[in-house]
Amino acid sequence: MKHNGITFPKGYLAAGTACGIKKNNQKDLAVIYSKFPAVAAGTFTTNIIKGHSLQLTIDNIKNTHVRSVIINSGNANACVGNQGLEDAKTITRFASDLLDCSSKEILINSTGVIGVPLNIKSVRKGIKTAVSKLSPDGNYDAAKAIMTTDTIVKQAEEELVLDGNIPVRIGGMAKGSGMVHPNMATMIGVITSDINISKELLDKALKNTIKDTFNRVSIDGETSVCDMVVILANAQAGNKCVKAENNDFLIFKKGLEKVCTKLCRMIARDGEGATKLIEIKVEGALTKQDANKIAAAIAKSPLVKTAMFGRDANWGRIITAAGYSGANFDPGKIDIYIGNMMVCRKGTAVAFDEDNAIKILNENDINIFIKLNQGNCSDRIWTCDFSYDYVKINGSYRT
Amino acid sequence: MKHNGITFPKGYLAAGTACGIKKNNQKDLAVIYSKFPAVAAGTFTTNIIKGHSLQLTIDNIKNTHVRSVIINSGNANACVGNQGLEDAKTITRFASDLLDCSSKEILINSTGVIGVPLNIKSVRKGIKTAVSKLSPDGNYDAAKAIMTTDTIVKQAEEELVLDGNIPVRIGGMAKGSGMVHPNMATMIGVITSDINISKELLDKALKNTIKDTFNRVSIDGETSVCDMVVILANAQAGNKCVKAENNDFLIFKKGLEKVCTKLCRMIARDGEGATKLIEIKVEGALTKQDANKIAAAIAKSPLVKTAMFGRDANWGRIITAAGYSGANFDPGKIDIYIGNMMVCRKGTAVAFDEDNAIKILNENDINIFIKLNQGNCSDRIWTCDFSYDYVKINGSYRT
Repeated sequence: MKHNGITFPKGYLAAGTACGIKKNNQKDLAVIYSKFPAVAAGTFTTNIIKGHSLQLTIDNIKNTHVRSVIINSGNANACVGNQGLEDAKTITRFASDLLDCSSKEILINSTGVIGVPLNIKSVRKGIKTAVSKLSPDGNYDAAKAIMTTDTIVKQAEEELVLDGNIPVRIGGMAKGSGMVHPNMATMIGVITSDINISKELLDKALKNTIKDTFNRVSIDGETSVCDMVVILANAQAGNKCVKAENNDFLIFKKGLEKVCTKLCRMIARDGEGATKLIEIKVEGALTKQDANKIAAAIAKSPLVKTAMFGRDANWGRIITAAGYSGANFDPGKIDIYIGNMMVCRKGTAVAFDEDNAIKILNENDINIFIKLNQGNCSDRIWTCDFSYDYVKINGSYRT
Repeated sequence: MKHNGITFPKGYLAAGTACGIKKNNQKDLAVIYSKFPAVAAGTFTTNIIKGHSLQLTIDNIKNTHVRSVIINSGNANACVGNQGLEDAKTITRFASDLLDCSSKEILINSTGVIGVPLNIKSVRKGIKTAVSKLSPDGNYDAAKAIMTTDTIVKQAEEELVLDGNIPVRIGGMAKGSGMVHPNMATMIGVITSDINISKELLDKALKNTIKDTFNRVSIDGETSVCDMVVILANAQAGNKCVKAENNDFLIFKKGLEKVCTKLCRMIARDGEGATKLIEIKVEGALTKQDANKIAAAIAKSPLVKTAMFGRDANWGRIITAAGYSGANFDPGKIDIYIGNMMVCRKGTAVAFDEDNAIKILNENDINIFIKLNQGNCSDRIWTCDFSYDYVKINGSYRT
């Protein structure tokens, strides 16, 4: 039987359980386990404040091998003082006994409310239960257990064929929803693979891929204190170890991009209160930075996002955001499209059919396309619309 | 009889009328007139895209004297091509005939929807009507006519006494509501004074004051294409001309600060869908830039703003915003207060009384106070909460 997500590659087990951090018996603790030592790489929040669990993981990922990733939701284990790091250490120590590995081989993270100490007794109980349930079918429960305000379970997988006809698998799970913005907002991604690859090249593949995927999702412009994407590779595919940027490396990177792209689009589509996935593409910029500034300003604009929710082709808000983005461009050369409909040509309004506009904006996927007509640089960001439900969800999250 | 707002100083007349740009006979055209030549200064949007009316004003304000300010709402006269500048010129030419002054002595602006040509016939009709109605009692109608999604008319005035016991008056009106963010989002302020002051010193007083007032209001992080604050001074107070940064200059600047502060607090409180005025103060920063980055990140955070709407003392979102603001600070030294209630000490949660928190958050005015305990620099920003009504207003603005 073929498994999905993080247990799709060979040699991985997973489990998700409810240990009582969240109310109503909701799953809140995930354990992912590699039966064999895996090399690992990670990217972490740029927020100057970092959760205590994450701080430990930033240390542990430096080790040669990793065996397990443990994540709890419902509590971020952040801003609680020395107790936070103590609790993080307790988790890895406790789990290392059960998993028969070193505590340094365990990556952990916590996502949820900030400033409330973990109920460590519940977490220990949860880890014990989850470890006893570890199985190749545990991927769904694990993916469910890392969710906070997410409404859908996010999993993806790809199978590739390396030179020498050797199949390699990549699987992944993610959570997102609120506080999501480059770089690494409350976004957690765990990727697994059975490829045989050096730690150095795995790190390179991840960082290159993140730039154009996880760092190109914006829900509300917020960057949280606990975000991370980690990848494990346990060499069970049996390929010759990838130690250089050869053809196998490129094939792997392409597969990794596909998995990350799928997860990121799911994250944007499932943004808090979102009804639409919005892809913003900017082309023809003088520099990559200019393209990125414009795409990011549009993706963060509450006025653009509420207009998309209201199915209003209000491109004035799009050009306004471009204008204040700080990017260098000629306002007299900019073209704007919503879907395939041109709404602005050379910075000036173009008459368009309002019925066609509503048809385009009724879709679940909206494309906003900016042509600057000046250079050869481009960028792309995924975001979502801004609805009543965003306010509802976030006006009453903690209580 | 004492008048309010822009007609409070001597020698100013005003009128506001409905010329049909807006539906339902809502006022949409304001004319302010100084019976005597006035020196003028202004600050304008930093958006790379600029409305056509505003472009003309940026030229005209360079002239020695100004006689009138004309503003229409309902249409921004932006991004409509060459026609936009032609229409702007038509307005000043037409008004200069009626007001018997040079077209270069008229400052104009337009605020509203982008990308739709002005109905210039309506605007001309409106100017004619408004000019015929100009009076010292027209201040309220004028302040009403510049509103877009504003719900309250914004006026303020101050009387000062210069050396030699000479009374000087300052009046002002403003609009704000949506697309408001430093620097100069869809925010229009018109200030009048009867002080006798050189153009150079008036400019200096305005720019110094704007920095800490109009450039410290953020509703939704947006900076529009039409924003401006202009000030006129017509010398009717009879004081000795202020040509240096003497005591009279300081007294005037203080009065100007008071008028601008009042208008800005009204703008923040009347932010689109706002139920609360939020003042964010940051103290103890190493540099002014660090203080500003933190205050701005908190003021722009949709998560903080929805929490305030939901009366949730979720300081985790406040410290998160500080953390990703890009400011340089030690996360282990930060204290956070909501109202007079400490919620975080040295980066760590402080137990607080939830009933007291709800009491504080039930108020119409909320103070968020950040003590970084590192240096001597500070900043302050006004913003508002983020409610269902923000989404409602902006999901259906254009149609």
